[in-house]
Amino acid sequence: MREPDQAQILHFNLLDMASPSHNNYGLWRLPENQKRRFREVAFWQETARACEAALFDSLFIADVLGISAAHAGSQDLALQEGIHVPELDPAVVAAAVIPATTHLGIAVTQSCTYEHPFALARRMASLDQLSGGRVGWNIVMSYHPNANENFGFDPAHLTSEERYDRAEDFMEVAYKLFEQSWEDGAVVADADAGIYADPAKVHRIDHSGPHYRCSGPSLVDPSPQRTPLLFQAGMSDRGRKFAAKHAEVVFVLNRNDESMHAVIRDLREQAAAFGRGPAELKIVPQVNIITGETAAEARAKLDRYQSFTRAEGYLAHEFGRGFDPFAFPRTMRVRDALEAAGQARADSGAYGRQPDLTIGELIDAAADLSNERFFVCGDAAAVADKVEEWADTFGLDGFNLRNYSHPHTVRDFGEHVVPELQRRGRYRLAYEGSTLREHVFGAGNFRVAPTHPAAAYRRT
Amino acid sequence: MREPDQAQILHFNLLDMASPSHNNYGLWRLPENQKRRFREVAFWQETARACEAALFDSLFIADVLGISAAHAGSQDLALQEGIHVPELDPAVVAAAVIPATTHLGIAVTQSCTYEHPFALARRMASLDQLSGGRVGWNIVMSYHPNANENFGFDPAHLTSEERYDRAEDFMEVAYKLFEQSWEDGAVVADADAGIYADPAKVHRIDHSGPHYRCSGPSLVDPSPQRTPLLFQAGMSDRGRKFAAKHAEVVFVLNRNDESMHAVIRDLREQAAAFGRGPAELKIVPQVNIITGETAAEARAKLDRYQSFTRAEGYLAHEFGRGFDPFAFPRTMRVRDALEAAGQARADSGAYGRQPDLTIGELIDAAADLSNERFFVCGDAAAVADKVEEWADTFGLDGFNLRNYSHPHTVRDFGEHVVPELQRRGRYRLAYEGSTLREHVFGAGNFRVAPTHPAAAYRRT
Repeated sequence: MREPDQAQILHFNLLDMASPSHNNYGLWRLPENQKRRFREVAFWQETARACEAALFDSLFIADVLGISAAHAGSQDLALQEGIHVPELDPAVVAAAVIPATTHLGIAVTQSCTYEHPFALARRMASLDQLSGGRVGWNIVMSYHPNANENFGFDPAHLTSEERYDRAEDFMEVAYKLFEQSWEDGAVVADADAGIYADPAKVHRIDHSGPHYRCSGPSLVDPSPQRTPLLFQAGMSDRGRKFAAKHAEVVFVLNRNDESMHAVIRDLREQAAAFGRGPAELKIVPQVNIITGETAAEARAKLDRYQSFTRAEGYLAHEFGRGFDPFAFPRTMRVRDALEAAGQARADSGAYGRQPDLTIGELIDAAADLSNERFFVCGDAAAVADKVEEWADTFGLDGFNLRNYSHPHTVRDFGEHVVPELQRRGRYRLAYEGSTLREHVFGAGNFRVAPTHPAAAYRRT
Repeated sequence: MREPDQAQILHFNLLDMASPSHNNYGLWRLPENQKRRFREVAFWQETARACEAALFDSLFIADVLGISAAHAGSQDLALQEGIHVPELDPAVVAAAVIPATTHLGIAVTQSCTYEHPFALARRMASLDQLSGGRVGWNIVMSYHPNANENFGFDPAHLTSEERYDRAEDFMEVAYKLFEQSWEDGAVVADADAGIYADPAKVHRIDHSGPHYRCSGPSLVDPSPQRTPLLFQAGMSDRGRKFAAKHAEVVFVLNRNDESMHAVIRDLREQAAAFGRGPAELKIVPQVNIITGETAAEARAKLDRYQSFTRAEGYLAHEFGRGFDPFAFPRTMRVRDALEAAGQARADSGAYGRQPDLTIGELIDAAADLSNERFFVCGDAAAVADKVEEWADTFGLDGFNLRNYSHPHTVRDFGEHVVPELQRRGRYRLAYEGSTLREHVFGAGNFRVAPTHPAAAYRRT
């Protein structure tokens, strides 16, 4: 087999979280699921090795800084179901898995909302140094009510617009620290001359913006990628604008065909308006794949996972958005219940996307794994057919693999689907570069593209 | 050999920093010194394994959040000498070394000054989970001018008193998150019942103090130690009061006999006044040991290290305190220069401790390794003699080993001095517990003592 064209390669990340459950509901109860060991370094190292064997771009560790509240503001359901709680700090987990792999990217969600950019930029730069340039940062602005309380913010302290305004200032500080503070070649380490770093090539940034001040210099000298690979998932109007400007990989929510096309078209148009080329923004939704040696084996696995899935877990997750379907009659339409709750559909996640169901249908469907968008259960050929079809229909660059069971979901994908996609010229045969950005944009592209806003801060 | 009495054991930590130099000046230039690889995970793993082979309590990674400014406020000297810059985030480095060892404690400096206690407590709890209870936290309040600028603080924003007031409130939040938020047994992980955590045993903390608000619950369930082992190094009046209350291990600065005795007596008396027992506060200064198979071999090593040592590096470090000896005539007494600079001796570090030297003598002596307090160069017996003498004279519980060259300093100590101290009943023969707190306080003592302030927040 020949190495496929870079443009044809589909990119996969494993999307997970350092908690009992992430995007699966009740599956921590599967006896074979190793996720119960999420507090063990060995567990994360095994997971990372499975991702690397499957030639994924990255192991992606998501984060949320509070516990979701369901019925009448209670966190009980989230605790009972182990939905994002307990949950370890993803940056710490990421650091612990670095030694287990040599090529796999390791990406983490880190919020701009509660800390100073100097601290976050230093942590990311340190991870990029230790990993040899394999780190990604999913930029989020936190909106979670319990996260606000945890950090002593008034829950109504910041509007979405204000969060994005602050994030723009935050990114400017981060870019200056990553790109502008230390010139290439500043570290000379000349033992004879007794010069470790050349002070003429290390600069204060002296940022004074509307929200943040920071003098610098960066405490960390330039890491292989300088700016870590940037992920973003904002889907609101302002969120898409932010993603089109800053993100190199955008996680899009799974919606109906019309909405998917519209969101993706808008992201690409806005990116072009920022002067970014069409290949500079990678767009990846979540994909839900259950596979095996045969279709029957895959089907048996689906049945097993289905039997352990709990609607309560799914609802505990979605309840984080503040809408409680159990508060309405089973016969009421979701659309009407949302209106009665005074909640906009766009803010209502899975509920808002299924307005014509009754509340009863919604609750019953919540536990149906095959009900997910971009779901496929079958043998390698069936899965590859669907993956190619989705990618080509919507112009997607890849997918985040939903993790049903550790390490089975990744291993199944790696053993069955990867060789099939390789035969079709749609999957890498080996890692070509050594940094995460090269996995996404091709060997040699370890720094942000010249049209990315971070590049504007480079010293020439 | 019998396992020695716990009370007789001397405790050793390797004190280092994720930068080219820490407490050594110019020794990054030693060809055999592996410290140049401080950006590599493999380097830190080798260092940790050497510490574990020497049965140390911990690898301790210090931190400072800004670059020291020397002559006329310039950072040039610190950059040239690689003194604490570049410098990686110690929490990230700590996480990366966890998988390399099974018993060694891993301690990090983390400042209370610039972040919210919820973030810091979560990070430490996550490290404690991943390491199986091997984590220590050195509590510092930052005063560094460049650190203040990096975080957008007015350099004169907080007085020392205000920093300690904030730190008291900070610790209360941290203790509530570590000790009070999740009861023992809250995680049931009952697959049949579908209950991951029992909501009745998970509590908000709803802290509302003078400086911090935090609702909780903690996002991390109880780690083996709950509260990480607490280190502190405050030497001012207020700093000693804070250490006597909160610290389990106090790093004391190396001073003359009279001052050492006074500081240690004061710490123990204040701890007793807080209701803490005499064995609950461990006191450790830095020790400077150069050893080998023979006294001659040790002496040759000293000569070699001495030839690479640069006074400029030492001065770049001490300049961080704002006093510049080069600004005064060589014949002037240090005492008079400090007075002319309007600087109190207590705030002047090594300068203030040598008031009767001339400025010229001070500069010339700065590069003399044998000039250090608690310095010994010799074979195992000579080193053990000195170590025992210092410990018994001052009532010390152990020492932080200064690291001249990686991994030679630790390896020399482990191969030569450890067996000698073991023969004398002053060193452990093996790790007896699995947590860092057990290394310090004996097997079984993995939680804070009942008289420690954190214990007051426990639910009964």
